[in-house]
Amino acid sequence: MTTTSSLTFQPVLERIAEEIERTPARGTPADYIPALAACDPRSFGMAVAELDGTVYGVGDWREPFSTQSITKVFTLALDLAREGDELWEHVGREPSGNPFNSLVQLEYENGIPRNPFINAGALVVTDRLHSRTADAAGELLSFLREESGNPALDFDEEVAASEAAHGDRNAALAHFMAAYDNIDNDIPVLLDQYFRQCSVKASCADLALATTFLARHGIRADGTRLLTLSQAKQINAIMLTCGTYDAAGDFAYRVGLPGKSGVGGGIIAVVPGRCTLCVWSPGLDERGNSVAGVAALDRFTTLTGLSVF
Amino acid sequence: MTTTSSLTFQPVLERIAEEIERTPARGTPADYIPALAACDPRSFGMAVAELDGTVYGVGDWREPFSTQSITKVFTLALDLAREGDELWEHVGREPSGNPFNSLVQLEYENGIPRNPFINAGALVVTDRLHSRTADAAGELLSFLREESGNPALDFDEEVAASEAAHGDRNAALAHFMAAYDNIDNDIPVLLDQYFRQCSVKASCADLALATTFLARHGIRADGTRLLTLSQAKQINAIMLTCGTYDAAGDFAYRVGLPGKSGVGGGIIAVVPGRCTLCVWSPGLDERGNSVAGVAALDRFTTLTGLSVF
Amino acid sequence: MTTTSSLTFQPVLERIAEEIERTPARGTPADYIPALAACDPRSFGMAVAELDGTVYGVGDWREPFSTQSITKVFTLALDLAREGDELWEHVGREPSGNPFNSLVQLEYENGIPRNPFINAGALVVTDRLHSRTADAAGELLSFLREESGNPALDFDEEVAASEAAHGDRNAALAHFMAAYDNIDNDIPVLLDQYFRQCSVKASCADLALATTFLARHGIRADGTRLLTLSQAKQINAIMLTCGTYDAAGDFAYRVGLPGKSGVGGGIIAVVPGRCTLCVWSPGLDERGNSVAGVAALDRFTTLTGLSVF
Amino acid sequence: MTTTSSLTFQPVLERIAEEIERTPARGTPADYIPALAACDPRSFGMAVAELDGTVYGVGDWREPFSTQSITKVFTLALDLAREGDELWEHVGREPSGNPFNSLVQLEYENGIPRNPFINAGALVVTDRLHSRTADAAGELLSFLREESGNPALDFDEEVAASEAAHGDRNAALAHFMAAYDNIDNDIPVLLDQYFRQCSVKASCADLALATTFLARHGIRADGTRLLTLSQAKQINAIMLTCGTYDAAGDFAYRVGLPGKSGVGGGIIAVVPGRCTLCVWSPGLDERGNSVAGVAALDRFTTLTGLSVF
Repeated sequence: MTTTSSLTFQPVLERIAEEIERTPARGTPADYIPALAACDPRSFGMAVAELDGTVYGVGDWREPFSTQSITKVFTLALDLAREGDELWEHVGREPSGNPFNSLVQLEYENGIPRNPFINAGALVVTDRLHSRTADAAGELLSFLREESGNPALDFDEEVAASEAAHGDRNAALAHFMAAYDNIDNDIPVLLDQYFRQCSVKASCADLALATTFLARHGIRADGTRLLTLSQAKQINAIMLTCGTYDAAGDFAYRVGLPGKSGVGGGIIAVVPGRCTLCVWSPGLDERGNSVAGVAALDRFTTLTGLSVF
Repeated sequence: MTTTSSLTFQPVLERIAEEIERTPARGTPADYIPALAACDPRSFGMAVAELDGTVYGVGDWREPFSTQSITKVFTLALDLAREGDELWEHVGREPSGNPFNSLVQLEYENGIPRNPFINAGALVVTDRLHSRTADAAGELLSFLREESGNPALDFDEEVAASEAAHGDRNAALAHFMAAYDNIDNDIPVLLDQYFRQCSVKASCADLALATTFLARHGIRADGTRLLTLSQAKQINAIMLTCGTYDAAGDFAYRVGLPGKSGVGGGIIAVVPGRCTLCVWSPGLDERGNSVAGVAALDRFTTLTGLSVF
Repeated sequence: MTTTSSLTFQPVLERIAEEIERTPARGTPADYIPALAACDPRSFGMAVAELDGTVYGVGDWREPFSTQSITKVFTLALDLAREGDELWEHVGREPSGNPFNSLVQLEYENGIPRNPFINAGALVVTDRLHSRTADAAGELLSFLREESGNPALDFDEEVAASEAAHGDRNAALAHFMAAYDNIDNDIPVLLDQYFRQCSVKASCADLALATTFLARHGIRADGTRLLTLSQAKQINAIMLTCGTYDAAGDFAYRVGLPGKSGVGGGIIAVVPGRCTLCVWSPGLDERGNSVAGVAALDRFTTLTGLSVF
Repeated sequence: MTTTSSLTFQPVLERIAEEIERTPARGTPADYIPALAACDPRSFGMAVAELDGTVYGVGDWREPFSTQSITKVFTLALDLAREGDELWEHVGREPSGNPFNSLVQLEYENGIPRNPFINAGALVVTDRLHSRTADAAGELLSFLREESGNPALDFDEEVAASEAAHGDRNAALAHFMAAYDNIDNDIPVLLDQYFRQCSVKASCADLALATTFLARHGIRADGTRLLTLSQAKQINAIMLTCGTYDAAGDFAYRVGLPGKSGVGGGIIAVVPGRCTLCVWSPGLDERGNSVAGVAALDRFTTLTGLSVF
């Protein structure tokens, strides 16, 4: 990881951090598992990674946090690279219009989840990657370590165990899709893979770097190609339309970048062909997105003029 | 309207037209009113307009067709320019996940439509523009004439009358929202405005030109500003997430541009900062989007590499 | 109307009235129109009519109140007598599981309302009766006058006008079903008929008498037959499963009789082959049923052992 | 079991059997598990049990069949007898308006199933009975043996295993409710109890006798009281409003008796204070009720005039 702290994006990040510092309301950390509830809502970090691996950062940008749903992007990329368009027979790519863990749509649509970023869809993608690799979570971890250049990245086994202990809703989703023959692996195996993958701890710097393959349209840190140009654009498109739960329209409206949030308070975003961002602040709004995180990204695109629109 | 036929985009358009020509299946024209059902499904036209007003075209690109829902974009711009963010207290900006004329979501969400591009949302926007101008449809027509440079653009009164005769579902939407105090004008007045606005006939050339204010981030053909930079980006964002009914995710995935379709078979699309497109072919898929139109835009972004992602 | 006040049911009614008198909480009168909001929530009346027309009563049992949805039972009987089972192609007979004025189910079920006692279903029945009689509301009024023996029964034009002024939701329902070709008459004509029919003012004594044709399995007060034995039982069955909005299961559980409530605070009930009841108290629970009314019927069946179960 | 074959109900049963014999169309047996799919759709049996235990029968009335959801009635009675009204904080008593295995309503209503006869509701009741008895299925089996006087009644372990092998949807329901803290036992334990209880094999004679405690308003075969008068009436009410999946309204309309069907093709029904019925024929309609079974009950109430209405 090459890091500099004096160039292009640094002043913007510092200005944003100052503004966020002055903002009183920051939402509430997720409280369904102890590890998330214990986060300090005043934490704030933000990093920008350029295509060449240069990273700028501010605040708690080197502090590892619980990535949660952010890893759904990487799992999708890893599976799509292996199976290609066949994946889309098992999961859609439309915004859901419903909360991320809803079962309603699944029932109306015969066990095919709306997109890979709601929980049901991520379960399907994990299931398929696991069938192809025999170790979906391990595959994800290797990828994140290589792209971030941080070999210390790891699962948080305590978080994974906590998720499993509160995992009835995800178990319900998995069994429900299994009833429609849309799950291959045994449910306990799948849930274990899924919860471990959600438990990865990584910093803003790590995640901004790990996301650059999307800004480089499919090229990994070592110069090899993971995805075709077209596939990379497609993942960016799905992030834009489906990446922030049922607030995707609002996020596109305010931020104007492909993004993916997690209930740990992190959000990654992509400026295709230019750079990636990762912001973290644990306080969430009622739809599960980081309050300060969305505000920071909103300011970033306003101040820099970077936006896909 | 300045038109040239030998420069940059012309060869691409011609190649696309040839490919489309060889495609057998083209969907089915809308059949709920006679004027649409009578369209020849083999019709195909496509135009590209550059920021300076240069237009390229192929096939039936000068043939006027029924714009239908495409005008929802312009009505939104005209109202947003007048009332600003207050509009968003009356209509959302999230993808609906449901067909364009559904009432289900309205009921769960207390009469606030999901976005300005489903019928319910467009009724609200029309209602609000009408309250501010006393002639929403006339305001729209003037705008389209001025931006396209075509003073002959007009309503198709026969289509408007047909829509009114088959207008029970839109009347239901309007009354339903009125029950939640989300409609100001009398329902018959509103419906008349709404149906006339949907009835505008225009060609691909006209619509590509009329859309350039979005590619120019708010600047009209005469150099005046209709929308702020931010507002223009916001409309592009809403087109991307909500512009093609419940296929917005798929359109973003395949085409990667902000777009808006109509059941007349037209689709407009924006390459921010670069150009606009309009394609027309009356055969629709089961979600109401032009089959050849989406295919042509898909080819265009693949061949040119133009995409927001 | 033959009335006695000393026989079988009188002591039970008096005991119930005393108990109700001591009950503090009585719900809230409907407030969507002024005439209902102005009702005194302490009002309480109850009447029992035997098969021979003997009526017992207590409290405000001779006080006319706004019948509202109670008249849906009579309109159904009048239409079923005329068109027979053909009606069931246009309206179902299943409990709705949703509030009485919901549009959600209508959309999923192609414009066929679940049953004749939700608003959508009553609009269909009124529409069909009006097509057969050219005066649905007048037909209803004549029937109620004849069965109750009270020629002074009448519409409350002020209430009808109020309903019309707040009628957007019913207009939405009517237009929505018209879009599915399930309404024959012009919507304004239908709504006028519907609102007038809801506006009838009648007392507990009037309504208990007017309902006896159901306890007599189809035989009217003058000895002529309105419905076949089978049809009368069918209406009783629909009252039991669908007569009290989305609380039908609870009403069957607590009261155990076919019943129909109105937001004016009245409820009619049938003990097949034995007698009918009408109770009135304007305070409603959150599902639109009279709080004291349900309590009084619950006590009645407990004290007398009368119940269909 | 005292049986006679010459008295009151015998001629009616024989007439019905002859009519059914002449009916060509009989629906399709359930096919989700092999044991049900293998049933002969021409099978037909019917039994009537009087309050004193006299049983009349016709056709395959002594042939054991898979009781499936019919046992939900007995499990409900056994739990209600133990815990009383506290049960109703965990399950509702309203008709669902949705298929018996739907998750949609559960999500909108926070994990509280609509009634004890949809799968979700029966899982809750089984869970609660199991917490109170440590052997819900065993408790049920003992009860059925004692009331029917048939000690040979037993689970069909092959059916229970089949159900478990196809149990993803019920597992989804159970996990989903557990996510709302509405399940006490471990899910695998609960599912085992649930599937065994559904697997009981019994004949029409057995089930008609086992149901008589409801016709006797709570009194068991040995004269002891299981339920209060009021509780017995309440179960009858719930059977009438919720006993035949999303066809309860139609069943009440046609048959007019409290009833409960199972996908094995059996239906039990109660004439309070008079007798009980059980009919069996494996061919189902699209809502999961026996075609010949409903037709036979319809004829029975028409021919005898027995009906609660």
